Amino acid sequence: MPVPVARHSEVDVLVVGAGPAGLMCANALANARVNVRVVDKRAARVTTGQADGLSPRTIEVFQSYGLAERLIRESVQVHLAAFYNPSSSGGIELTSRAPDVTAPSARYPFEVALHQGAIESIFLDSMRALGVEVELSTSPTSIEISKDENELTDPASYPVRVVLQKDTPEGEPQEEIVHAKYVVGTDGAHSWVRKHFDISMDGEQSEYIWGVLDMVPDTDFPDVRNKSLVHSNHGSVLLIPREKDRLRVYMQLEDKDIINPATGRVDKERMGPDQMLEVARKSIQPYKLTPTTGILWWTLYIIGQRVASTFSIKNRVLIAGDACHTHSPKAGQGMNASMNDAHNLAWKIALVVRGWADTSLLSTYESERRKFALDLIAFDKMFSTLFSGKPLTEENSDGVAHEHFMKTFQTFGGFTSGIGVHYGPSVAVLEKNQELASGLVIGERFPPYKFIRAADAWPFDIQDLLPSDFRFKVIVFAGDYSDPLQHARVESMVADMQKPESFLNRYAAPGESSANPRFDIITIGKGRKEGFEFLKFPTLLRSHWSKVFIDDTDVTGSFGGQGYSYYGVGPEGVLAVVRPDGYIGTIAPLDHVDELNAYFASFMKIPA
Amino acid sequence: MPVPVARHSEVDVLVVGAGPAGLMCANALANARVNVRVVDKRAARVTTGQADGLSPRTIEVFQSYGLAERLIRESVQVHLAAFYNPSSSGGIELTSRAPDVTAPSARYPFEVALHQGAIESIFLDSMRALGVEVELSTSPTSIEISKDENELTDPASYPVRVVLQKDTPEGEPQEEIVHAKYVVGTDGAHSWVRKHFDISMDGEQSEYIWGVLDMVPDTDFPDVRNKSLVHSNHGSVLLIPREKDRLRVYMQLEDKDIINPATGRVDKERMGPDQMLEVARKSIQPYKLTPTTGILWWTLYIIGQRVASTFSIKNRVLIAGDACHTHSPKAGQGMNASMNDAHNLAWKIALVVRGWADTSLLSTYESERRKFALDLIAFDKMFSTLFSGKPLTEENSDGVAHEHFMKTFQTFGGFTSGIGVHYGPSVAVLEKNQELASGLVIGERFPPYKFIRAADAWPFDIQDLLPSDFRFKVIVFAGDYSDPLQHARVESMVADMQKPESFLNRYAAPGESSANPRFDIITIGKGRKEGFEFLKFPTLLRSHWSKVFIDDTDVTGSFGGQGYSYYGVGPEGVLAVVRPDGYIGTIAPLDHVDELNAYFASFMKIPA
Repeated sequence: MPVPVARHSEVDVLVVGAGPAGLMCANALANARVNVRVVDKRAARVTTGQADGLSPRTIEVFQSYGLAERLIRESVQVHLAAFYNPSSSGGIELTSRAPDVTAPSARYPFEVALHQGAIESIFLDSMRALGVEVELSTSPTSIEISKDENELTDPASYPVRVVLQKDTPEGEPQEEIVHAKYVVGTDGAHSWVRKHFDISMDGEQSEYIWGVLDMVPDTDFPDVRNKSLVHSNHGSVLLIPREKDRLRVYMQLEDKDIINPATGRVDKERMGPDQMLEVARKSIQPYKLTPTTGILWWTLYIIGQRVASTFSIKNRVLIAGDACHTHSPKAGQGMNASMNDAHNLAWKIALVVRGWADTSLLSTYESERRKFALDLIAFDKMFSTLFSGKPLTEENSDGVAHEHFMKTFQTFGGFTSGIGVHYGPSVAVLEKNQELASGLVIGERFPPYKFIRAADAWPFDIQDLLPSDFRFKVIVFAGDYSDPLQHARVESMVADMQKPESFLNRYAAPGESSANPRFDIITIGKGRKEGFEFLKFPTLLRSHWSKVFIDDTDVTGSFGGQGYSYYGVGPEGVLAVVRPDGYIGTIAPLDHVDELNAYFASFMKIPA
Repeated sequence: MPVPVARHSEVDVLVVGAGPAGLMCANALANARVNVRVVDKRAARVTTGQADGLSPRTIEVFQSYGLAERLIRESVQVHLAAFYNPSSSGGIELTSRAPDVTAPSARYPFEVALHQGAIESIFLDSMRALGVEVELSTSPTSIEISKDENELTDPASYPVRVVLQKDTPEGEPQEEIVHAKYVVGTDGAHSWVRKHFDISMDGEQSEYIWGVLDMVPDTDFPDVRNKSLVHSNHGSVLLIPREKDRLRVYMQLEDKDIINPATGRVDKERMGPDQMLEVARKSIQPYKLTPTTGILWWTLYIIGQRVASTFSIKNRVLIAGDACHTHSPKAGQGMNASMNDAHNLAWKIALVVRGWADTSLLSTYESERRKFALDLIAFDKMFSTLFSGKPLTEENSDGVAHEHFMKTFQTFGGFTSGIGVHYGPSVAVLEKNQELASGLVIGERFPPYKFIRAADAWPFDIQDLLPSDFRFKVIVFAGDYSDPLQHARVESMVADMQKPESFLNRYAAPGESSANPRFDIITIGKGRKEGFEFLKFPTLLRSHWSKVFIDDTDVTGSFGGQGYSYYGVGPEGVLAVVRPDGYIGTIAPLDHVDELNAYFASFMKIPA
């Protein structure tokens, strides 16, 4: 029998693992027209259960890829959080209801819940339209990075060698040797990629063990369609509404329920769905809870709170999602953190692969996202302790007071919503001139606000002008152009942007100077739509009629007109650079285009 | 050669003509699961040009069929109207800009523009999902209605006999004899159906002749992305923005440009796109107008302002759309009127075919829509005269003053938006108890407002609870159920609704009493989401947890909470019946369920 010769191939980016993080990454790269492949060892897709909630910031990220409309159409919205505590008559009672999302700038003031299979389908359909499909039953069996420093620093090289094995229904598995520029490991909590490179997970096992059930309930509990956080004397329960009238029930389990005393280890045989249902029922007394069509899905969570010691091997192999951080499900952050890792990473890889940015840009992935993961773990520990703790009662004076729990819930709303995520200084975040736009926090996502398009008075949320299309957006807050002084300032700024040393020209390949694909200039003036003359702006500020906006109310006077003040921008205007992922890179006054030049010089490459 | 035997078939509804009216009708009937066929003599579909603007009410109607999301995604929005008039230096100048839509209750405060082919595609895709396709190259060659009165009044009979001829690419046309319960003629201004039944068109030819061009303009005219109404000393021009940066230009033509003096008749040879462009250019001086990619489409409008003398033959053959009214394009009403005819007709046919309603319900189609068509023609004449008239200048003291034109534009905003359409008393409109809900005008469409769903604080526009699903919606404004007096009122009302003589039971077939498919009960209470107890409502008012709403603000406090006051409903509440097409059928106090019984008794049929 002849020995089969393995096929060799090259790819710019190989994504290992097609869960939410891998699909976010692969879809983003496909959008950027990067040559990407994504493999998954599973033979079939997840169609039920698993991760559920998407935070307000994650919905904004979906919107930036044009995917929020479908996400919102298919999912369930969670607007209110209901807090239950022990009642004087035994059992529990409603203490209060409060907005589930407390971050005031959230564009979507709610969370959405949708099963993981449906979320993955949104990505799969988007990728398919771009010609990228997930290769199932395919997993790496070996991975090596070149030790040649020249190869590692050469942007044209393929220094990562991966052997892929594809299982086939009959016969021998097929082998392929892939030479990749970059490999992204999004292969979950038990990541093969991470283990292969001996990256340690720092942290500890959780103190608490949780179970989870999906059902369509028959119940007199009033808040099954809100997020309910139940503190009872029998344990804590978290209820999350799901699509098709379903309910997800998370419940705290006690060691005695789940630990085998003989071995001292978790024994899943001791706790099945029926036992878990009993735990939940006891906790929500006097309310009834009966599954109408049985238990649809269930599992146990005993994952610890841990963060990988590094997220990158030589900026050529990067890990993201559960592969680099695991934590409890109560903070509702798992899938959100994973997808936002990928969102943070994808544009950086795309710009480096295109030759627009230096490899050093990739280092900001670990600095930005590992810091976030550590913060998440810290929050998770605190919140888990509060949520799993016994409630404060007369008998239990060490318990958790409702007011304290509620205050924590609200204080950390910016964090749990994803809205308050702040990336520190790096080559991609230049903290300068913050005082010129106090509402545009450098290192945070550009907050939504509605502006009126000058040419047709069509109101747009500014976030819809900041799609994840791998361009930097330069937002020119031009002020009142009909004011002679401001007119002169803008003219002078435009002249500076047209100089050879301006970023627009410095990072332009021959032929690109008139429409540099790296940058998109959006102009926001002050004035009233009834008399605004957008055609008077210099053409640099209106490359198309759709690029000029006014800080004015919509035609019905219902919203808008306070954008400058909301962003803390004065009448003299400001320049804001928005990264391709929607985060504010830096800010400069109109008379300091040189500061934008300096920002881009820290990581952009001059075209050969 | 054997003589081919024509095939015989039966169908509930045959729609003749697949333009906007026919497709709206066929899609609506397909939605209602009525056995419907739609034929069109054309061999292929329209893909460019033709009708364009959809009014705010038409967008609401699309939304009621679940089609507005796509419509809005694909189309261009028109928010502002710009008015130009002669300037002192010759040429024209901007006089003012104002909201294009002035109806204050419009849910969508804009018009949308989209070419007819795209609009038709929305219907075609929707119908296809329901298993209905347009049969092209197929037209009627004969149509006969039975003269047998018994057959005409028997709901089970098929009294209309239509011979259809289908042209085939090669060989003989195929004949089919269709026996239909109902035929809808939506076959355009030159309607074969109308002519076959000798229905006269009453009215006159227009005094004015208009031309229309589509182009992608290169221009310094500031308002090509707004609707621009230009009165110049060289004639009047109407500009409408279109998708893909296109512009539609309507221009007034003078008799001398288009009438052959030898014959005194319109001669299309005298006026082509180049001549029309010159007319438009002269009218918008000093602004320039150059098509960048040529003239994409053009035509001449010389259609008169006429209305068919009847819209129905024995309530078995009905005509709709351009088949029963033609008018000038300036009021932007043609396609809107046509589709709203079909929207008005479809549910009536559906209910009669299902056996839920008496045939008499069909008579309200003519009474409602012919009245509208006559109003439309009257408006069109006045508006055309104003728009086509010379502007008021020093030399022309008889001209049209801008203020007068502008005032007319705004006064008739309710009419042109479609929002203010009012259907008079009939079996389907019972004008009674109007004083109990001054903001819910009986005979008009239910105005949009946002309410908060009690179970999950999810905000919904009430129009989204009123889909065109062929059910009557009974909106129970229950007031404050925690108030003992109001509690008693609601309990008593529920008891009345549960009596045998209640419409809910009277018009229920055996087995339907617990969930009568003819009616959908929606409850709107007063209270605050933080403490609202929707599970305390009687089960009749909460057949599903999603059926109860609160007149309260959303979680961010941005909107809502004033619905009772907006609708003029007092604390004692009210019952409102909404027809399947979204129009308010009648209103009754909570202690007069008998008045709802009387309303439904006027046209509903007791199941056999």
